[in-house]
Amino acid sequence: MNPAQNQTRLIALDWGTSSLRAYRLGAQGRVLDLRSLPWGVMQLPEVTTAVAAGVDDKTGFEFAFEQACGDWLRAAPQTPVIAAGMVGSRQGWRETPYLPIPIAIDQIGGSLSTVKTRSGQIVHIVPGLIQSSALPNVMRGEETQVIGALALLDAERNSHTATEADQVLIGLPGTHSKWVQIRRLESQDRITHFDTFMTGELYAALCGHTILGRTMSASDANGDDHAAFDRGVLVAQTPAGRNGLLSTMFSTRTLGLTGALDGVGQREYLSGLLIGHEIAALQTLLKDQAQQPARVMLIGAAALCARYTRALGAVGFDRIDVAAQATERGLWQLALGAGLLRSAAAD
Amino acid sequence: MNPAQNQTRLIALDWGTSSLRAYRLGAQGRVLDLRSLPWGVMQLPEVTTAVAAGVDDKTGFEFAFEQACGDWLRAAPQTPVIAAGMVGSRQGWRETPYLPIPIAIDQIGGSLSTVKTRSGQIVHIVPGLIQSSALPNVMRGEETQVIGALALLDAERNSHTATEADQVLIGLPGTHSKWVQIRRLESQDRITHFDTFMTGELYAALCGHTILGRTMSASDANGDDHAAFDRGVLVAQTPAGRNGLLSTMFSTRTLGLTGALDGVGQREYLSGLLIGHEIAALQTLLKDQAQQPARVMLIGAAALCARYTRALGAVGFDRIDVAAQATERGLWQLALGAGLLRSAAAD
Repeated sequence: MNPAQNQTRLIALDWGTSSLRAYRLGAQGRVLDLRSLPWGVMQLPEVTTAVAAGVDDKTGFEFAFEQACGDWLRAAPQTPVIAAGMVGSRQGWRETPYLPIPIAIDQIGGSLSTVKTRSGQIVHIVPGLIQSSALPNVMRGEETQVIGALALLDAERNSHTATEADQVLIGLPGTHSKWVQIRRLESQDRITHFDTFMTGELYAALCGHTILGRTMSASDANGDDHAAFDRGVLVAQTPAGRNGLLSTMFSTRTLGLTGALDGVGQREYLSGLLIGHEIAALQTLLKDQAQQPARVMLIGAAALCARYTRALGAVGFDRIDVAAQATERGLWQLALGAGLLRSAAAD
Repeated sequence: MNPAQNQTRLIALDWGTSSLRAYRLGAQGRVLDLRSLPWGVMQLPEVTTAVAAGVDDKTGFEFAFEQACGDWLRAAPQTPVIAAGMVGSRQGWRETPYLPIPIAIDQIGGSLSTVKTRSGQIVHIVPGLIQSSALPNVMRGEETQVIGALALLDAERNSHTATEADQVLIGLPGTHSKWVQIRRLESQDRITHFDTFMTGELYAALCGHTILGRTMSASDANGDDHAAFDRGVLVAQTPAGRNGLLSTMFSTRTLGLTGALDGVGQREYLSGLLIGHEIAALQTLLKDQAQQPARVMLIGAAALCARYTRALGAVGFDRIDVAAQATERGLWQLALGAGLLRSAAAD
């Protein structure tokens, strides 16, 4: 490899609640190195008093930061550092106020906060977004992934008609699924609306801490039970689904009692049921707003995106893509927009 | 007290998943004695091998039964015994098949199963009910409470017009809330439909095992935060409520983040939010079925019934009563219907 190609241009941190991922990025945002550390904002390393002279409540962040990229910075001292996620929350390293939506995504890179480490390194922190509707909605970290997915889309856009590109719906399934509506106006992508569904966290709580989990089994060697999953997905589309999740979830148990679902089936059915209710709510919302997104892009773990792709297809969405490497692409785009990268480096 | 009034006519057991309540009933079903034991079907006493010669998987039931009412039976050996609840489930003392609905409530007493204890005592077990709809629904124990509430209602009925008595909606809030529709046809009460909502269990799982619970506080000495509860109740009635519970529940967190709800308020808000979604689903259901119940009767713990009464009132239900002693009344009615009580004893 040409040594210049291995030159560090940006250190990008994806710093969430339960984990920290550090990327060393080269020219054009190519990933040169990646480290995954268990030190999320809510589980920072405990620093012993001996190590931490002058310890304060931010010492854990300093220590984790050093472990994540201290050596990279010593090898390339002038490299800019950018971080997104819960690191900017009230419990984070430095609270970075939410920006209100609707917002043009280009504006986000112009609103980074900074924190200076004890060794003098500046870390730029990406703000989250807030939607001040009757029931407020917030995100931290997902805005960066959305920007990454849109950068990927931009690369394809010339081959599409303007109409197709007008509206994009970006789904980020997970603990707290987000669905983000993008509208393109005057060559600018704008985040116009987003919703949160606690699908992943609710699924874990139901399987682990309610009667529904007691008769479930893990998926067996034959893989997942697609029929049970699909059955669950469709419930919210039927008249019985009008009773809402509080009621339909109990059918996980009764379909077990009546012999219609075995232990593996109950687990898959509940997964489908929750995802199905999420998507049905999304359909209602889009209809109420007279929105008809030309395409759906999913960002997330591959297995989970496969579940959502299957469920979306079952209820009539027909153009669904999974966006890879959205986080590191987004951090790169934000650093570019913030002027952190000399243009020579970016090229 | 006249000794005849203290004479045991029926021993009635309310034997659920987590507890066992034993009633000693006298003439006309008056409660003479009540015992509460922690030995639900899923947490029976562990019987040591020394005690349990000839131990089998039913020994825990025998032991708990003896503790609950062995002395009562020795004092009044001919007394009939009836039991309702999970004691009749697959995990119970003797599985008692579900009866299908719609069903006239008088039929239930004619379908009791029996189990004989080692000492020769017959225990009559009340069957649960099943609704074999697309998403099946089951109950065990609630049918007995419904019968008790209807017996209470019967005592008042002469003073009401027939129209008022035609349709009654009975709510049993709790871990798994049930809503039971009753229609009176040719002087017979029939259970025509019922629904289950996992409201209580979901509330506990969300408070105990998700991010929503982390910023909550227990209610303080000033009592509950009614304003936060009411705010939660009304969410499902607003456009934002159309997004469904998976989405609206996240507002418990965001209203905390934005300072609109404190720790106590978040707990009360989530309680109201879940109950409000339950009642909104019930309203949709009643509308779809063109049902308009003349009155609502609630059965359950006083504090919980107070919450539901408040929530039902807030969304427009105007005749709501709480039925007291529904379980013991129901067991007495079922024993009467089954011919277990000599008529002299019943009077």
